[in-house]
Amino acid sequence: MQLGLVGLGKMGANMRTRIAAAGHEVVGYDPRSELSDVASLAELVARLEGPRVVWLMVPHGDPTRHSVVELAGLLAKGDVVVDGGNSRFTDDRPNADLLGAKGIGYVDCGVSGGVWGLENGYALMVGGADDDVAKVMPVFDALRPAGPRENGFVHVGPVGAGHYAKMVHNGIEYGLMQAYAEGYELLQAEPLIQDVTGTLKAWTQGTVVRSWLLDLLVRALEEDPELAEISDYTTDSGEGRWTVEEGVRHAVPLHVISAALFARFGSRQESSPALKAVSALRNQFGGHAMVDQQGRTVGETAAPRE
Amino acid sequence: MQLGLVGLGKMGANMRTRIAAAGHEVVGYDPRSELSDVASLAELVARLEGPRVVWLMVPHGDPTRHSVVELAGLLAKGDVVVDGGNSRFTDDRPNADLLGAKGIGYVDCGVSGGVWGLENGYALMVGGADDDVAKVMPVFDALRPAGPRENGFVHVGPVGAGHYAKMVHNGIEYGLMQAYAEGYELLQAEPLIQDVTGTLKAWTQGTVVRSWLLDLLVRALEEDPELAEISDYTTDSGEGRWTVEEGVRHAVPLHVISAALFARFGSRQESSPALKAVSALRNQFGGHAMVDQQGRTVGETAAPRE
Amino acid sequence: MQLGLVGLGKMGANMRTRIAAAGHEVVGYDPRSELSDVASLAELVARLEGPRVVWLMVPHGDPTRHSVVELAGLLAKGDVVVDGGNSRFTDDRPNADLLGAKGIGYVDCGVSGGVWGLENGYALMVGGADDDVAKVMPVFDALRPAGPRENGFVHVGPVGAGHYAKMVHNGIEYGLMQAYAEGYELLQAEPLIQDVTGTLKAWTQGTVVRSWLLDLLVRALEEDPELAEISDYTTDSGEGRWTVEEGVRHAVPLHVISAALFARFGSRQESSPALKAVSALRNQFGGHAMVDQQGRTVGETAAPRE
Amino acid sequence: MQLGLVGLGKMGANMRTRIAAAGHEVVGYDPRSELSDVASLAELVARLEGPRVVWLMVPHGDPTRHSVVELAGLLAKGDVVVDGGNSRFTDDRPNADLLGAKGIGYVDCGVSGGVWGLENGYALMVGGADDDVAKVMPVFDALRPAGPRENGFVHVGPVGAGHYAKMVHNGIEYGLMQAYAEGYELLQAEPLIQDVTGTLKAWTQGTVVRSWLLDLLVRALEEDPELAEISDYTTDSGEGRWTVEEGVRHAVPLHVISAALFARFGSRQESSPALKAVSALRNQFGGHAMVDQQGRTVGETAAPRE
Repeated sequence: MQLGLVGLGKMGANMRTRIAAAGHEVVGYDPRSELSDVASLAELVARLEGPRVVWLMVPHGDPTRHSVVELAGLLAKGDVVVDGGNSRFTDDRPNADLLGAKGIGYVDCGVSGGVWGLENGYALMVGGADDDVAKVMPVFDALRPAGPRENGFVHVGPVGAGHYAKMVHNGIEYGLMQAYAEGYELLQAEPLIQDVTGTLKAWTQGTVVRSWLLDLLVRALEEDPELAEISDYTTDSGEGRWTVEEGVRHAVPLHVISAALFARFGSRQESSPALKAVSALRNQFGGHAMVDQQGRTVGETAAPRE
Repeated sequence: MQLGLVGLGKMGANMRTRIAAAGHEVVGYDPRSELSDVASLAELVARLEGPRVVWLMVPHGDPTRHSVVELAGLLAKGDVVVDGGNSRFTDDRPNADLLGAKGIGYVDCGVSGGVWGLENGYALMVGGADDDVAKVMPVFDALRPAGPRENGFVHVGPVGAGHYAKMVHNGIEYGLMQAYAEGYELLQAEPLIQDVTGTLKAWTQGTVVRSWLLDLLVRALEEDPELAEISDYTTDSGEGRWTVEEGVRHAVPLHVISAALFARFGSRQESSPALKAVSALRNQFGGHAMVDQQGRTVGETAAPRE
Repeated sequence: MQLGLVGLGKMGANMRTRIAAAGHEVVGYDPRSELSDVASLAELVARLEGPRVVWLMVPHGDPTRHSVVELAGLLAKGDVVVDGGNSRFTDDRPNADLLGAKGIGYVDCGVSGGVWGLENGYALMVGGADDDVAKVMPVFDALRPAGPRENGFVHVGPVGAGHYAKMVHNGIEYGLMQAYAEGYELLQAEPLIQDVTGTLKAWTQGTVVRSWLLDLLVRALEEDPELAEISDYTTDSGEGRWTVEEGVRHAVPLHVISAALFARFGSRQESSPALKAVSALRNQFGGHAMVDQQGRTVGETAAPRE
Repeated sequence: MQLGLVGLGKMGANMRTRIAAAGHEVVGYDPRSELSDVASLAELVARLEGPRVVWLMVPHGDPTRHSVVELAGLLAKGDVVVDGGNSRFTDDRPNADLLGAKGIGYVDCGVSGGVWGLENGYALMVGGADDDVAKVMPVFDALRPAGPRENGFVHVGPVGAGHYAKMVHNGIEYGLMQAYAEGYELLQAEPLIQDVTGTLKAWTQGTVVRSWLLDLLVRALEEDPELAEISDYTTDSGEGRWTVEEGVRHAVPLHVISAALFARFGSRQESSPALKAVSALRNQFGGHAMVDQQGRTVGETAAPRE
């Protein structure tokens, strides 16, 4: 089949390669003309035969919205737009309604796989109407990992469900990464542990904690055993925040996922206003015995203890 | 080689099968005579030729200590005792010293793999002196997963290091499980998500969160999609507690691992004394608007709000 | 001065009493006619001389919005509406704009004090323009605690700032209550502690943790030392949720406040879906040694440990 | 009555002043001869008439233990030793047993109040036998705040109970301080809030969150509104750690208290090994859209998102 693909950054370009390798024709558009097959969205639409499928791989928020608005004016009844970006699920319903008013279908698709997706396939979480999803299925089959469709592809529910599932996926990812990270920190703090990387590597087979993330952590440590070239400044993609907000909305206790998110927030602070306030309080009620990292009291306190 | 194996519960019995399948001779002892090859530890020791290796697969704490004490009186210089149980790492040094005073070696070995280890192999984290570890290596090679030794086996450091690594492994496991569990709870709380099990199953290929634990969660949900037969009462094996205590000792912030442990504690309470205190406080300063699970105010409050 | 007061529930009625006691004339409206001085908002407005001040003490969300919309059609240029309810700060700007289009001022006022405010005075956090705040100042002075104005009253900033401050106040309150509650639970779990209530009571003087909340907790325990009549089912007023959402928006790590909120969520679950998932996972990889509440292994595990 | 007081640091010196002001005779010993009334513990004991009461105000751990051991050789049957320091409760039983073997009584006393105790009185939490406690009561009455004995003094239970209660007190204190600190950080992050100090000051009267700690925070901010002179490096006294360990031992979920402790740990790290691991993982699976502090995507990501 034909596919219009909007957004040819690294992720989009990789996906294009994988889709084309499955025998489909991909017409790509990107505002960077050196990456683009066509000069405009209008030209992209003109190049496709109906019913058309146009897949957006564009930053979430305004860029995605603008693309949807423009496509609403270009596409025809029976065409389908797929938002494969990391949009918030609450953006999907308005996009679907705008397009739906013209008879154009809308499918939201959470895509997981990162740089490894080109080779391994991308996991796809899809929301939308059955017939819209069906129109895109050949592309989904090209993108997803080889093997049974249900391992790597799911039609989660109506419009919004795909991005919702991807959001939860990323929230879980925050928690998993922080769990490994805390264990790593504890291993490297303990003098008995003379081979941190080797320990993690041993865990990659036969253990309960084996996973792809663990494989990646071992890979990172084999490249840089002290993580000396790595900053602890950790950004967040927005999806961790939305997950916590959904936990709040549904009254679901997300102790672990929120702790992982807050740890990232903390990593970006040069100093913590909150801990300055704690320090200020302690100064107010009198000094404290100093305790070293092993919990031993070191030196006498000049001021009264609390 | 020959191995004396003490403790023939399900775990010990499975390990025995795997060791024997590799061509080694296993003499097993268990206080349950129907499971045991010999009538006593003394008989077990007598059945082995020196240098002997005796592997303990016994509950941690007193049972393991008693076995070590008894073996210290039975074994000879050059023999080695392996504690393959889930002992706290602080138990290892005293055991090693007791045996070392008689020239008997001591190796602590964290074993991961559960019921699946028989088939997949067990991951092994080992602490002890090089020559003691070397004497046990044929057994380690029999137990560990097939493939390169470093994937599934590690000599972590001196006595205690093996159990320390296993403890951290289990602490991480707590965090991982809770992360998946929170994501699962959020998925099942959201009406858009019409196929929770299918979503998790799709994640098993191509995603960042794919792992063996995720495979198991899908397996559990395929058996019982609503987890209707499962209680939320969750015990803990001790290793999660020790991990948090080590975080406290080393001043390592374990936000996620401790949250996972505390969630298990909470699951075992019929009612929470702490939350009763919160309720009591709220009653004291005047009622509250009732908010439903979606965060909407429901009904007027009779009493002043705070 | 004159004040129109809308909403004569327990909170509103108490505030009316305190305002009237300071010599002001309060005209009250409530849809419950038996509580109301007037039959309608229109009549309330007609009873006040300009420039009028109308104070809303109405549930947040739609009820407050409807009152504002109706008042926008009844009031005149130079009048002021005060929202003294627990509105989300994001509701304030739209309300202010609606009224401002007609020259009507808007002040948002967070009110703290609960049932005790009638006697002790209410703490007031105010947002709005200086001249609007000035028009209401006699009422603020009547409501706030005796003593210097700055202890109990603050003009925090522009429209929205008052409710923002109140929201943060309540978020802190969640954290404080949970901190006392956890300490209480630990005291009552430890056999050495033979007088939990007496311990908390001793803390009410001279300690670092003395506070009004502690006084209330002692009061609750003196009435019911086992909290036997108290359920641990704990609702939340919405402000704790908004506080966490603001922490997420501003990338402020709110470890403690979010943990307190999530503990309340947990208290409302008959069983935890997340912990059911944890249990299901543990069943999948083989049983566990049972550990009792003191961390001692109790009974042998039938299945392999992990 | 007479009291022997060992340890004349700032805390001990202040307590001595308050005890002497109540008409008791205090004989003080400190290894710093310029602070000391006597040259040795032996001389101190010689200066007191029996039954003697000797109060230790010495750093916990070895210094306190050494004092107890020495006093066991100097005191006589019927004398009493009070440990008023911040000892771990597990130290009390061994101390009591050592002294008890010679007929010497032992009382553990948690003391709260910091530098303010001299003026306000100290809150006292006491563990020990009734008759031992009775012998010290005049000193307790001198130290505690004026007013009813039960507000500021409690005989909590047997030996160890006093330090246990003080430990929990300090654990709660960690949680309270962190709750205020998080609220402070959120206030200062929000542009609507134009008067952070004024807001906190307004809360000191009439609110649910009013407390002595809040008074101190306002005091600190009035001295230094930006906390510009305050480092966020926050030590811990040991008691927060012990509280978390007790929570682990008793299976009491301490979400808030542990989060407060871990926040302090984090404040002492130049960079977080755990967050370096998170960063390393993110690098492995492909870059991320950068999100600024307001959650807006800033700049395009070069690498695929996850």
